[in-house]
Amino acid sequence: MTTAASKLPAVLDRIDADLDNSLARLFELLRIPSISTDPAYQDHCRRAADHVAATLTALGLETSIRQTPGHPVVLGATANGAGPRVLFYGHYDVQPVDPLDLWDSPPFEPRIATLPGGRKIIVARGACDDKGQVMTFLEACRAFKSVTGSLPLAVTLLIEGEEETGSKNLPPFVRESATELKADLALVCDTNMWDAKTPAITTSLRGLTYEEVWIRAADRDLHSGLFGGAALNPIRVLTRVLGALHDDNGRITIPGFYDDVRELPADVRRQWEGLGLTAEGFLGQVGLKLPAGEKDRLLIEQVSSRPTCDINGIIGGYTGEGSKTVIPAEASAKVSFRLVGDQDPEKVRDAFRAFVRARLPADCTAEFMSHAGAPAIALDWGMPALGAARQALTEEWGKEAALIGCGASIPIVADFKRLLGMDTLLVGFGLDDDRIHSPNEKYDLTSFHKGIRSWARVLAALAQ
Amino acid sequence: MTTAASKLPAVLDRIDADLDNSLARLFELLRIPSISTDPAYQDHCRRAADHVAATLTALGLETSIRQTPGHPVVLGATANGAGPRVLFYGHYDVQPVDPLDLWDSPPFEPRIATLPGGRKIIVARGACDDKGQVMTFLEACRAFKSVTGSLPLAVTLLIEGEEETGSKNLPPFVRESATELKADLALVCDTNMWDAKTPAITTSLRGLTYEEVWIRAADRDLHSGLFGGAALNPIRVLTRVLGALHDDNGRITIPGFYDDVRELPADVRRQWEGLGLTAEGFLGQVGLKLPAGEKDRLLIEQVSSRPTCDINGIIGGYTGEGSKTVIPAEASAKVSFRLVGDQDPEKVRDAFRAFVRARLPADCTAEFMSHAGAPAIALDWGMPALGAARQALTEEWGKEAALIGCGASIPIVADFKRLLGMDTLLVGFGLDDDRIHSPNEKYDLTSFHKGIRSWARVLAALAQ
Repeated sequence: MTTAASKLPAVLDRIDADLDNSLARLFELLRIPSISTDPAYQDHCRRAADHVAATLTALGLETSIRQTPGHPVVLGATANGAGPRVLFYGHYDVQPVDPLDLWDSPPFEPRIATLPGGRKIIVARGACDDKGQVMTFLEACRAFKSVTGSLPLAVTLLIEGEEETGSKNLPPFVRESATELKADLALVCDTNMWDAKTPAITTSLRGLTYEEVWIRAADRDLHSGLFGGAALNPIRVLTRVLGALHDDNGRITIPGFYDDVRELPADVRRQWEGLGLTAEGFLGQVGLKLPAGEKDRLLIEQVSSRPTCDINGIIGGYTGEGSKTVIPAEASAKVSFRLVGDQDPEKVRDAFRAFVRARLPADCTAEFMSHAGAPAIALDWGMPALGAARQALTEEWGKEAALIGCGASIPIVADFKRLLGMDTLLVGFGLDDDRIHSPNEKYDLTSFHKGIRSWARVLAALAQ
Repeated sequence: MTTAASKLPAVLDRIDADLDNSLARLFELLRIPSISTDPAYQDHCRRAADHVAATLTALGLETSIRQTPGHPVVLGATANGAGPRVLFYGHYDVQPVDPLDLWDSPPFEPRIATLPGGRKIIVARGACDDKGQVMTFLEACRAFKSVTGSLPLAVTLLIEGEEETGSKNLPPFVRESATELKADLALVCDTNMWDAKTPAITTSLRGLTYEEVWIRAADRDLHSGLFGGAALNPIRVLTRVLGALHDDNGRITIPGFYDDVRELPADVRRQWEGLGLTAEGFLGQVGLKLPAGEKDRLLIEQVSSRPTCDINGIIGGYTGEGSKTVIPAEASAKVSFRLVGDQDPEKVRDAFRAFVRARLPADCTAEFMSHAGAPAIALDWGMPALGAARQALTEEWGKEAALIGCGASIPIVADFKRLLGMDTLLVGFGLDDDRIHSPNEKYDLTSFHKGIRSWARVLAALAQ
């Protein structure tokens, strides 16, 4: 048994005994209105960075605040030693708070409240996203430091201040700081549990190809009375093309689209079936009843392990009040594809463009613009660190940790893979009802408390 | 031979001799900036009405200016007598002139110019639409009055001031003034010749059904990463429905849509073939090459005697710069149908709604709004007045007058039919290159001169 593992019971006791102080430290950070998108809050963002830096210094880390063209990045690292090193990523910035009048209490005056069912919650902007989640990791480190005098393994922390505005200065920073940041594994605490009782590790993220297309016909807008019937209407062309992207079974019709999609291994499929994601539970919350994806797939597959095509925007002709008898010169749409497995974003992009071009009547043209292209990310399910973290979470929560896929993209994970060749374990304690980005954001006290304990267990396990 | 017919040669001579004075009188009217849509020009609209009223009084008509909630209507009528009565409709208001800097000369300072090929033209806002066209009729009346002491048949004139803003006060006025306005036939001078050498009578107008449809799915906008694949996307539904409205041959697929469409009589089809409307000529002017309508139809049929379906507007999701990964809650489109023959606007509306509803997945709803519904208008080709007018035009121009269909709707014609049970002869001398509604609007001097002579001939013919 390693030192870290043998000391774990003491560390966990320490976490329990120190919970009120942990909360007080979280509240200090929550009181700083570090809204990154609003220039009026620039000084507060700087204060939040200073606060985080002070915390890292107190943990014994070599700490610095790095300027970027935007809000600064806080970097801290333990000295080099034997054994693996992990890079923990989080962010100190938060979303704006409007509409302010929908908050039950001031968003930057954190408080403990009790839900009708008895659950205690921390209410504040950032309570979950991401200050509360980041603090679960920092408090676990603090407990180790206080019980054992040091952290259980080499740790680098990267806490940025622009996640809520798209992290546009982060990839260059990661590229420039590759030597400092390189570690054996990245850890991110910005995701959710499966449900309030079931911890989860997100092991895959879908990729993205995002295209915009303009269809153009006549060189001006035309009167639909005088030209209607003879003049090609680009909205007719566009709807005909986009309307053909799915077949009656919800399958995407672009030739070769599914070529590089892998089937779910049987054991994963069994595990996912056991999670029991239902249309009532998942779609019911947004007023829907029926999964709209491929008919022969589980709902959980449709939203995480299967690729998609969505038209995210469309516009053409007259869209104001009332009517106008126009045949427009142009119509356009934004179309995105969520990618999985080995799907190549550029290959999908080219196949989409060929699909459109193959359906163009002679009298019109198509112009394309690419807005994004990123491959899917997937951990090897047999990866030892994954197994160790899963076991640690399972022990803490008394229920087997779910290994799940996330339907969305998290750019920093792709950047770590692309720029540093590093895999990422996504472990978070958020819940679906946390109202992140909305009024009355909250974080369950249990998520915070057991989140700290979970990280203590994960760190001990990864140190072995 | 009637008096009118026997006096016609003298009247035509008078028109030729008086052309400079006719032009001077047209220029007086063109100098009044009667822009109906701009409240700043209200007094000028009133001045234009006064000017027209003075002209009608000079013709010996019982004349009055009638107030409406908008700009006034000028009404004039000869005393009752034996024989038929015609109602002439025109408008004294004009379109705005911006962009002013694209005009080669001030829009309300009419001038004569010569085109490179030698054609003389009258340049001014309203030179064609509709002051020049209205004045061809008034000058013909003036010539008759001056040669014979009276008009050749009973005439009522209705000259309104809101045509360029949609004539919204005209239908109530027509309804309230039905007794005064009722005549045997209406005449309108607001259309074009077939080409510069071929006069035309427009004998049919397409009707219109104009629908707006909203497709709604989830009760809020969703993140396409988290919900994509499972949540129904209303843009996908909308494009699929609208993309199915036409088949590969350009035919509209709504069941029963063509039920009440009549085939063109063989002789009309022959005449239209002879007119030689080409894709190069008609579509080439707007940057297109190929007729997009039903493949087995002449181009001239596609734009005048065949019904159409056009999507005039579509919008849904994110339509700003860049990208947003949204599955919107709603998408909508404006869809219009040009109707011909006996197509019933309400039947077409209901068939379209049924077509949409039949393609709706279970998890979404469709809401509809009707913006317009008007049947097609078509004269009986055997109607004696039509034959007489055609003969008169043929004699004036030395080329057989074409009987053509107009693809657009002209609401006043439908109102005359609906409210007064009266057919309308549409005879105009505009040309496709007159740039109505645009900078440097013009009217060929030949259109003006021979237009006056044409009306003299038509009036003489109708008086028989």
